[in-house]
Amino acid sequence: MSKSTEGNYFEDFAVGQTIRHATPRTLTSGDGALYTALTGNRFAINQSEIFARGVGYKQMPLDDLLVFHMVFGMTVADISLNAIANLGYAECRFLVPVAAGDTLRAESEVIGLKEHSTRQTGTVYVRSRAFNQHDAPVLHYVRWVMVRRGGGERRGPAIVPSLAELVAPADLGYSCPRIDRKGWDFAASGSPYRFDDYRIDEKIDHVDGVTVEEAEHMTATRLYHNMARVHYNALEEKSGRFGRRIVYGGHVMSLARALSFNGLQNCFHISAINGGRHVAPLFAGHTVYAWSLIKDKARLSGRDDIGALRILTRAMKDQRGGDFPTEAAEEEKAGVVLELDYWALIPI
Amino acid sequence: MSKSTEGNYFEDFAVGQTIRHATPRTLTSGDGALYTALTGNRFAINQSEIFARGVGYKQMPLDDLLVFHMVFGMTVADISLNAIANLGYAECRFLVPVAAGDTLRAESEVIGLKEHSTRQTGTVYVRSRAFNQHDAPVLHYVRWVMVRRGGGERRGPAIVPSLAELVAPADLGYSCPRIDRKGWDFAASGSPYRFDDYRIDEKIDHVDGVTVEEAEHMTATRLYHNMARVHYNALEEKSGRFGRRIVYGGHVMSLARALSFNGLQNCFHISAINGGRHVAPLFAGHTVYAWSLIKDKARLSGRDDIGALRILTRAMKDQRGGDFPTEAAEEEKAGVVLELDYWALIPI
Amino acid sequence: MSKSTEGNYFEDFAVGQTIRHATPRTLTSGDGALYTALTGNRFAINQSEIFARGVGYKQMPLDDLLVFHMVFGMTVADISLNAIANLGYAECRFLVPVAAGDTLRAESEVIGLKEHSTRQTGTVYVRSRAFNQHDAPVLHYVRWVMVRRGGGERRGPAIVPSLAELVAPADLGYSCPRIDRKGWDFAASGSPYRFDDYRIDEKIDHVDGVTVEEAEHMTATRLYHNMARVHYNALEEKSGRFGRRIVYGGHVMSLARALSFNGLQNCFHISAINGGRHVAPLFAGHTVYAWSLIKDKARLSGRDDIGALRILTRAMKDQRGGDFPTEAAEEEKAGVVLELDYWALIPI
Repeated sequence: MSKSTEGNYFEDFAVGQTIRHATPRTLTSGDGALYTALTGNRFAINQSEIFARGVGYKQMPLDDLLVFHMVFGMTVADISLNAIANLGYAECRFLVPVAAGDTLRAESEVIGLKEHSTRQTGTVYVRSRAFNQHDAPVLHYVRWVMVRRGGGERRGPAIVPSLAELVAPADLGYSCPRIDRKGWDFAASGSPYRFDDYRIDEKIDHVDGVTVEEAEHMTATRLYHNMARVHYNALEEKSGRFGRRIVYGGHVMSLARALSFNGLQNCFHISAINGGRHVAPLFAGHTVYAWSLIKDKARLSGRDDIGALRILTRAMKDQRGGDFPTEAAEEEKAGVVLELDYWALIPI
Repeated sequence: MSKSTEGNYFEDFAVGQTIRHATPRTLTSGDGALYTALTGNRFAINQSEIFARGVGYKQMPLDDLLVFHMVFGMTVADISLNAIANLGYAECRFLVPVAAGDTLRAESEVIGLKEHSTRQTGTVYVRSRAFNQHDAPVLHYVRWVMVRRGGGERRGPAIVPSLAELVAPADLGYSCPRIDRKGWDFAASGSPYRFDDYRIDEKIDHVDGVTVEEAEHMTATRLYHNMARVHYNALEEKSGRFGRRIVYGGHVMSLARALSFNGLQNCFHISAINGGRHVAPLFAGHTVYAWSLIKDKARLSGRDDIGALRILTRAMKDQRGGDFPTEAAEEEKAGVVLELDYWALIPI
Repeated sequence: MSKSTEGNYFEDFAVGQTIRHATPRTLTSGDGALYTALTGNRFAINQSEIFARGVGYKQMPLDDLLVFHMVFGMTVADISLNAIANLGYAECRFLVPVAAGDTLRAESEVIGLKEHSTRQTGTVYVRSRAFNQHDAPVLHYVRWVMVRRGGGERRGPAIVPSLAELVAPADLGYSCPRIDRKGWDFAASGSPYRFDDYRIDEKIDHVDGVTVEEAEHMTATRLYHNMARVHYNALEEKSGRFGRRIVYGGHVMSLARALSFNGLQNCFHISAINGGRHVAPLFAGHTVYAWSLIKDKARLSGRDDIGALRILTRAMKDQRGGDFPTEAAEEEKAGVVLELDYWALIPI
């Protein structure tokens, strides 16, 4: 039997199956530095031990999306090496802060399978869970991907899990210690705006744009151990769907989040991701912009330190998108590449 | 009011105003590794704990220019997002060594303002100061930038600060512990040459050249949180002054300093920067060379361990510059992009 | 005398001479993160403190090839700045694990010199040794390089050292603690295959390919302090042998090793390198693939925890090489760029 693998195909998955993923990771300050350098993250909570401890963290937390990508990356070799597209995310919750020195491992449970009518592909639904060195769950999320069929057959009916449209406010804030609002330095964080300053339906243009280079997205994606060939192999992708390497969608998420600092400076923690759509692929050479819509606000039960903003951040390519288009019909014209729907915590 | 910002314009500044900058940073060994990988720094003092402690440091110091860029980067969002050019630096002094684990914050005081005759731009002079987690000043410097005027008006007369042409020898060495010359391993540092071996007017060709890629200078500049759009946004810069992204001038300073290792191996610490001129912009694809002139030498009062060399390092693009041109008229022909005038410490 | 150097020429070397190299390095978790991001290394032993300690290491070891490149890089300024080609390696043994926080220094002894018939170049043989902060030898190897002759003359006969064709099994395993096989988590390591599952003459296609960008190989090579101009200077290389920058051969070794994870997941440690040939240069833009041949197997005296596989890994450019060509005559057609012959340790 071959000791190397081309990855699992659609028919290799079975509902109920749990896969323990390879290569646990000890996250380090080196990972944090690289993440900053590759994405431009400027949130004070992830950059200053003094700031983080001053507001209540035991240790400066690593950026939430860095943690997400590290866990996501562990799952790729088993789940999505033969994926054609990441179709969606749901029910993503951050449960414990992750800091340099923590070691993460991950497993995924197959919770749904649906063959497509062409029979060439199918959708695989998995719930992935990450644990730290104390076996505490730090993150879980559902994602579904379109996976190629190999030579085999899959028996059994389609099973499509029912997924929550959004994470309920009651489920937010688990990974956030009690925040000492007096310790929050609004000059250091970069903005005076807190929970009450944002209103539902407010739109924020994040102004800045950043051009992506091949070396950057490949370096970021390799850092996460995400080895899907569409991101690395220019030779094979030349004859692929788009004729070139595709930027890992998670890198776009990180760029959009980093750009959103300009307007959401105090939204220090992503507590949950309700959903995410990679509307269109991004390629090197394009310039990414972002804007956000404050979709909702929630007070958290028993907490007078922080509230949650439900934010819908869109990333666009080569268009600043000052007119904030929200209709799906306008997405292509507006160059939308990503829509990320998440709950961020912010001091009250 | 918009929660995101396009940055301050000329008329937004007032002399005497002090701005506390956002996003304090805990510098880490990850930042140090990235700095080495992006610039090629090889000075032993910044690379080996054993070497650094052996000569008298409590902990291996991070490269001085890394510290400078980190502080500079903090100031960009407030000072120079709408800058057309960094015009100059002066009175830059390093006061305390910075090591992995230290947390820096910065503030700037506006010390001068001068509207230009076109009234489209003005020069803003700021004195920026950085402090560590013990509130000890670690670095301060003056810089002046040409900033665009927005829609508004500025009232009041021009105020131009008088700045020292150079940092006096009496003000050098503050950030340098007593150096144990017996602990200085000249094989490890890469050269036998010490203070007495350099003579005034000596010229040193640093031989090597290094080609700059877009991904490299953007990664370095993002590491420093310097988000000026001229460095990142290929789309907007296409219709900008040069039709393309400009390499952050500080990256050129770092490349020149790294190249200068070949000839200045024992100049282990930049104690002060007298001035710096970004003579011409640098773009990706060009190859950077450097040479240095020993402009002066100074013994430091009360110290028989170290002396200071006043070094004038020039970086050139696409020319090795072995004929050491120093006339301004020859600069363009010689491809000069940077002139950096600084005091470096070296064992006696 | 010039304080900068163009490096040593063939006639500058003498057999018996020992050169202590500059710039000792304290390796950090930042170096480890960068190595992962630039090469894609996924071996669990280098990624998880929990995994590494669970199987018997005191501390998570850094990747063996990262250590090799760091040491190699120290030698470049003295040995191979004027090298035309790295001709070979032999007798490379890893003697002590290296972890973040360790400080390495290196020295080389010239053990052979042979002028070529053209008299323009000669081969220099050196044995390089690295030591840690406890003065324990951590690594030594022989390499030979083709070096340009400068203006001078070399007197004396050719001296060619006799080198072992391979490191004997009795000399393996020194840098590997006793492995607790019960602590070895085969799900975490990514494969169930252990010593007995591999057979001599087995061939493994590592499936994946990765395209190399200029910014990536230069960043990696700069991290190692390997300043040979052929890797950095696009301007001078335009008129050089290949008309462009050459990827450091060690980066190709690292890419091949990282790709080989897909098939050799439990080959956690390179204990010795028998030899290495850079069959052809690699340039940015090419896509690297790899396959491996299990050339031999060895049990180690007194050890029932681990065995050694002698692996011959070949890297190819722009060809996946599923037909495993081994004849030298087929190498060019098959796009072979590297042949690396090494002993890897694997749990029994």
